[in-house]
Amino acid sequence: MHSRTVFFVSDGTGITAETFGNAILAQFEMKPRHVRLPFVDTVDKAHQAVRQINHTGDAEGKKPIVFTTLVNMEVLKVIQSGCKGMLLDMFGTFVRPLEQELGIKSHHRVGRFSDVSGSQEYSNRIEAINFSLAHDDGQSHSDLAGADVILVGVSRSGKTPTSLYLAMQCGLKTANYPLIPEDFERRQLPPALEPHRKKIFGLTIQPERLSKIRNERRPESRYASLENCRTEVSEAEAMMRRAGIRWLSTTTKSIEEIATTILQELWPERLRY
Amino acid sequence: MHSRTVFFVSDGTGITAETFGNAILAQFEMKPRHVRLPFVDTVDKAHQAVRQINHTGDAEGKKPIVFTTLVNMEVLKVIQSGCKGMLLDMFGTFVRPLEQELGIKSHHRVGRFSDVSGSQEYSNRIEAINFSLAHDDGQSHSDLAGADVILVGVSRSGKTPTSLYLAMQCGLKTANYPLIPEDFERRQLPPALEPHRKKIFGLTIQPERLSKIRNERRPESRYASLENCRTEVSEAEAMMRRAGIRWLSTTTKSIEEIATTILQELWPERLRY
Repeated sequence: MHSRTVFFVSDGTGITAETFGNAILAQFEMKPRHVRLPFVDTVDKAHQAVRQINHTGDAEGKKPIVFTTLVNMEVLKVIQSGCKGMLLDMFGTFVRPLEQELGIKSHHRVGRFSDVSGSQEYSNRIEAINFSLAHDDGQSHSDLAGADVILVGVSRSGKTPTSLYLAMQCGLKTANYPLIPEDFERRQLPPALEPHRKKIFGLTIQPERLSKIRNERRPESRYASLENCRTEVSEAEAMMRRAGIRWLSTTTKSIEEIATTILQELWPERLRY
Repeated sequence: MHSRTVFFVSDGTGITAETFGNAILAQFEMKPRHVRLPFVDTVDKAHQAVRQINHTGDAEGKKPIVFTTLVNMEVLKVIQSGCKGMLLDMFGTFVRPLEQELGIKSHHRVGRFSDVSGSQEYSNRIEAINFSLAHDDGQSHSDLAGADVILVGVSRSGKTPTSLYLAMQCGLKTANYPLIPEDFERRQLPPALEPHRKKIFGLTIQPERLSKIRNERRPESRYASLENCRTEVSEAEAMMRRAGIRWLSTTTKSIEEIATTILQELWPERLRY
């Protein structure tokens, strides 16, 4: 049961407003309804947003919570003066003290993504995505020298989502390679990876969780059996320990947490730029 | 030249702090140095962060700007009392007025990603990523009924990054299909897609930009020539118009803007949940 609605109003995508607003709301034991209103970039659309917010408030009998990241002052003024919700103006709250500290005026330009499509950073992201797709699941050994990160781990330990996240959000060309029985028999990393050991990062996972994930794909298979998962995980961990590569357990971690840890270990300069 | 450093301090990944802080900083004509300090979740680490921030401030002779999304009060207090930077406590600023409005206390739990890895939403994201990988670039016609979105467009119009973004960030199973000369000759969408017309969204792009992108991959080719790009784009747009499918131009848009527009058009309920 939702008893209250939270709006995220932005003249851009509203992703920043929603990400940040959700992090704040996560501090409360409540399940509000979420409504993202993106691209509210004209006075007309602002009036429309106000109507929608006030209508919701009347229907629920409770003030809607309204997070805004509006930089267009005309639009913001319409919301400020007409909206009966509780307004949390995320930009204004911090921009004004910053103007004082920095001694410069903000320029009220819309959207952190605007016109990024022509930028170098943006084409790096796209190039990294293409690289990671071509090097998913050990598909290619070509140009491993060009990789920024090489992930290894048993099948279904989280390599593919992590690779794509590192490519898409951090612009890192990320290859990933499964560790398979042949590697365990040789007791060595796949030979093609040896020269690139410094870029290798390992992912491991609790056997119980791995077995559950694999069972969803191939129920009742030997591949998914707890016994086999235990063997594979223990072989893989022993190998990573011998090879002296860094690794972490993905069992209770989100892609974002895994990616941030990999940045700290392999690319700390991506956290300082 | 950087003249001032901005820190993003979090007891989680710091992604929220950095995303939001950057959106605010984008309002100013300045290029500060960025330092993200993730996983600051103990008093010891807080003291370490304080030393780093103050050292930077002394070296630069300017107050560092410090965005924090700390929920651990002990950690926050160390930063508040010891740090000589300009502290922007993003959570505290909004959490306190929200406690008043909601009439409940916040629980100071760390991290919007904590322990999400076992949740249904999280496994939906992973499943969507796998689906999108298997249905990238028209690789498979199987289970198109299971797709949430089907993107079409000429080669290099932005389909792959958009598909992966929709899967990873929105949990939407997104297939993508290139429109190729055979389709233009038949003057019809690829036949396998016909039954799923309602889920199709088209991407187009300015021929000049397309030619530039293609030239980076295959310089001097007919494929990349401006003339060929013009023909393909005009055929593709004519076909999408005839088929009555919705489409947009990706030329100056970021993945995030494209994805948000697709949500508005095909999955508005994903913006309201």
